[in-house]
Amino acid sequence: MTSLATDETHAASPRPVDFRVRPGAYRHWRMEIQPPIATLIMDVDERSGLAPGYELKLNSYDLGVDIELYDAVQRLRFEHPEVRAVVITSGKDRTFCAGANIRMLATSSHGWKVNFCKFTNETRTAIEDATANSGQAWIAALNGTASGGGYELALACEHIMLVDDRSSAVSLPELPLLGVLPGTGGLTRLIDKRRVRRDLADYFTTRPEGVVATKAVAWRLVDEAVARPQWADTVAKRAAEFAARSPRPAGTQGIELTPLAKTRTDTTISYGHVDAVLDRDRGCAEITVRGPDDPPPAGFDEVHRQGAAFWSLAVARELDDLILDLRTNEVEVGTWLLRTAGDPGRILAYDALLLDNRSDWLANEIVLYLKRTLKRLDLTSRSLIALIEPGSCFAGSLLELGLAADRSYQLDGVFEDGDPAAEPPSVTVGPMNLGPLPMSNDLTRLQTRFFGDPAALSAVEDRAGEPLPAEDAVGLGLVTFAPDDIDWADEIRIAVEERASFSPDALSGLEANFRFPGPETTETKIFGRLACWQNWIFNRPNAAGPNGALRRFGTGQRAVFDRERV
Amino acid sequence: MTSLATDETHAASPRPVDFRVRPGAYRHWRMEIQPPIATLIMDVDERSGLAPGYELKLNSYDLGVDIELYDAVQRLRFEHPEVRAVVITSGKDRTFCAGANIRMLATSSHGWKVNFCKFTNETRTAIEDATANSGQAWIAALNGTASGGGYELALACEHIMLVDDRSSAVSLPELPLLGVLPGTGGLTRLIDKRRVRRDLADYFTTRPEGVVATKAVAWRLVDEAVARPQWADTVAKRAAEFAARSPRPAGTQGIELTPLAKTRTDTTISYGHVDAVLDRDRGCAEITVRGPDDPPPAGFDEVHRQGAAFWSLAVARELDDLILDLRTNEVEVGTWLLRTAGDPGRILAYDALLLDNRSDWLANEIVLYLKRTLKRLDLTSRSLIALIEPGSCFAGSLLELGLAADRSYQLDGVFEDGDPAAEPPSVTVGPMNLGPLPMSNDLTRLQTRFFGDPAALSAVEDRAGEPLPAEDAVGLGLVTFAPDDIDWADEIRIAVEERASFSPDALSGLEANFRFPGPETTETKIFGRLACWQNWIFNRPNAAGPNGALRRFGTGQRAVFDRERV
Repeated sequence: MTSLATDETHAASPRPVDFRVRPGAYRHWRMEIQPPIATLIMDVDERSGLAPGYELKLNSYDLGVDIELYDAVQRLRFEHPEVRAVVITSGKDRTFCAGANIRMLATSSHGWKVNFCKFTNETRTAIEDATANSGQAWIAALNGTASGGGYELALACEHIMLVDDRSSAVSLPELPLLGVLPGTGGLTRLIDKRRVRRDLADYFTTRPEGVVATKAVAWRLVDEAVARPQWADTVAKRAAEFAARSPRPAGTQGIELTPLAKTRTDTTISYGHVDAVLDRDRGCAEITVRGPDDPPPAGFDEVHRQGAAFWSLAVARELDDLILDLRTNEVEVGTWLLRTAGDPGRILAYDALLLDNRSDWLANEIVLYLKRTLKRLDLTSRSLIALIEPGSCFAGSLLELGLAADRSYQLDGVFEDGDPAAEPPSVTVGPMNLGPLPMSNDLTRLQTRFFGDPAALSAVEDRAGEPLPAEDAVGLGLVTFAPDDIDWADEIRIAVEERASFSPDALSGLEANFRFPGPETTETKIFGRLACWQNWIFNRPNAAGPNGALRRFGTGQRAVFDRERV
Repeated sequence: MTSLATDETHAASPRPVDFRVRPGAYRHWRMEIQPPIATLIMDVDERSGLAPGYELKLNSYDLGVDIELYDAVQRLRFEHPEVRAVVITSGKDRTFCAGANIRMLATSSHGWKVNFCKFTNETRTAIEDATANSGQAWIAALNGTASGGGYELALACEHIMLVDDRSSAVSLPELPLLGVLPGTGGLTRLIDKRRVRRDLADYFTTRPEGVVATKAVAWRLVDEAVARPQWADTVAKRAAEFAARSPRPAGTQGIELTPLAKTRTDTTISYGHVDAVLDRDRGCAEITVRGPDDPPPAGFDEVHRQGAAFWSLAVARELDDLILDLRTNEVEVGTWLLRTAGDPGRILAYDALLLDNRSDWLANEIVLYLKRTLKRLDLTSRSLIALIEPGSCFAGSLLELGLAADRSYQLDGVFEDGDPAAEPPSVTVGPMNLGPLPMSNDLTRLQTRFFGDPAALSAVEDRAGEPLPAEDAVGLGLVTFAPDDIDWADEIRIAVEERASFSPDALSGLEANFRFPGPETTETKIFGRLACWQNWIFNRPNAAGPNGALRRFGTGQRAVFDRERV
């Protein structure tokens, strides 16, 4: 259940938002499972917006609706491995989905809008990930008009079907009606994924009424148009065809994503294996990820029995929830200090169990979930600093936290005043660092780190499996700095204070650029190019000013534009 | 000569700006030619800023300084083919260049800042183009500190030398001092071109004092550090080495880039082959590019004799100047209608003469200049609509105008009330469309247009050389729409009116996304990702607000930041 608004002055930006939901309490979606097909029915409850001040008409959505969608995507993968195709459709008459709620957008703060769009984008890439890597192909069954974010949701699916009834259309009316972009991947997916010709895309996105069935097929906006009498049968047939092509093994049984135990106070957020302590004065969160208490089970059957309690999955879920919570609810906490605690060998053993059983659907799902969670970290607009101290376990999957960081510090030696007998900290490269957890740019974090320097990458790969003390890790370029006991506290203090003194906006821009050297993908283009243009537009008076298009929409008054082209 | 300010209320945004300069009148640069080396000495005249209100101290620059630099880059290529290496250095004591003038930035409008940065970025990519494709390698000889845009200018060079005197440093202090990004390619070139590790880049860009010689070499920020006593000799030696590697033929003689004849009234801009009529009410410029009056010369020697009067070169210069003029001085003219007039066969003949003589340095330079000018068009934040009418010559190099457009209309037939006996218009694909004029993404405009659709691209290539009437051109996907005489005027009128009614900001974002499907390069990342983040930051109160870092710099007061992370 998502929280209700707590801040009346900021009606559409309720905080704190809780991302933990469950299907029995969905307000906006219904999930019908008839193996091997799942049907996800969008049927938004107008009056259950996350905040007061707007009604979710015409299946328009706000963050609350999208939180449920995200939950459904996750549960379909873990709880319903028998599902091989997912049909997403609408429970409304003649409307598929009208996109993000305009009134919600118009009354939200800039930061809220940007964070909302980022989360919705991540959910859409998760849908593409399920199609590509989990054998759950998503099919958009547009039984009515899909406009704006509604059509963008369809664009995230593998196959788009549009009912051919002379009125149902697909459209991206953001530019003509709202003065903003189709920023939830729309522009990029049109030309890069569906390969709609750029001039047709230009025309399409300036036409508020959109395009109906036949032309939509001709322009590649949808894959097929189906007359209403044949609609249900054709959707069922298509779903069966996609299901038949899925590589998912038969006869599998899901695991339950049990409610996530979480304790939240004003200054702490705690889960089973992950903690965060918020220091608002220093503008930082001290995050600690703890390794498993026990060695991994001997066989993978036991992992199925442990289910959501299995360490790797539990940690992915906790970290995912923490990232979303901090992003949404703690916007002034600009620096995240990332620590780990535990036995590095044990992390590698858990990693090995997953990778040795990658053909098991559950192992595959856990690795994919780790991948998505780490991608979310890469895309987080917070400064990430990894602190590698005695007792830490930056190995394999948890070393990715260090590699995702903007900067990392590894203690050279031990804390003499603390535990002089401790082992000096190490970092260990493992198989998880060498392929299974790519970033949005389709490179591993190591490939990204050593982009254009294959010799440095080889040197690191050659030391895989070896615990590397600070001197070696710095020499190999795996960590940034290796202060000793004498300098440690000051260096970290200065780094954190410095970060807090810089412009938060400039930091977001800096980090978003530095985290993605090298090639770009549809995904990085959505997050790094399209979303960035949208953020700029959201911040301009022509959209968000009192006379801007976003604010004036639906008032009967036309927007007033500064006509200067920038 | 650049104009002085004409608008006292907007001190740092003088208009109209004239981009036509000549070395004899440079105020900020000296060019010394000792073949095969040219030395370009930056020696900015503090009191010759383009507008009142700021002093160009410490070799800081404004648009006027950069206009001269751009002119120098162009003249070195055309007037000095004997030059095989260009050394860029400073005429000041112990300062190379302090980057863009902060006071100028702080007092400029948002649009001015964005346009200024775009132009400076284009000049830096022109420097890289000279190094890569003209056999003129640029060497940055940093005889003093290079900070901010000063270091970014060095990053555009092939080789960076820094004097090792314990005080001269390279730095990117924009983030800590100004709350903005090193947005003139700095962030991207660090990690993508020079392959500085991302965490070292993070540290470097948060350190206002920068990094001096030895560490700068170790971190790949510069290529070599040279003690002051060896400085002059080492720079000369390195320049000679680069010159020796240049493929430029010896014994060549340049052509003069004669003053560009231009007539400008309030509503017209006219050159020899290019005209623009400004219609401020409709928010559009009607641009016509005319083909050559005569057939091409029989041999390429005659092209050398014609020099700047040779049609292809003349048109490139005129179009280049027009784009810069309209971008800078006509910011409310949001739509450019692109027409051509002339004999299509003659365009193809001029193209063929250039391509058949590509081994001639001048032919090569003209093709490269066409390439850069068309790239500038792609990067222009104006709606581009091509109108293909009877009497037009959208063939080969001029067809690129149609392919650069966001949308194109080709008349199906003729204007019955105008000239019923005219030939219906055609478009013709030629060799210039198939490789020599790539976009910033390293694809041709045809490859970009048919990205991911090789069959469509082949179908077009198969018809190369054939004048294609509207029906064929639409069928092949070369143009967007083919209205007939009855619909033409209304369709164009509606398209132009519609464009003028949309949010200018949303249009800029839309077009910038649609024009670049497919792969990204360092160049597209600079213009599409880095510049876009910078635009967003420029628009935020943390930078440009009254208490923002950009405005408070140098006042002794600290910036006040909204600490929310977006």
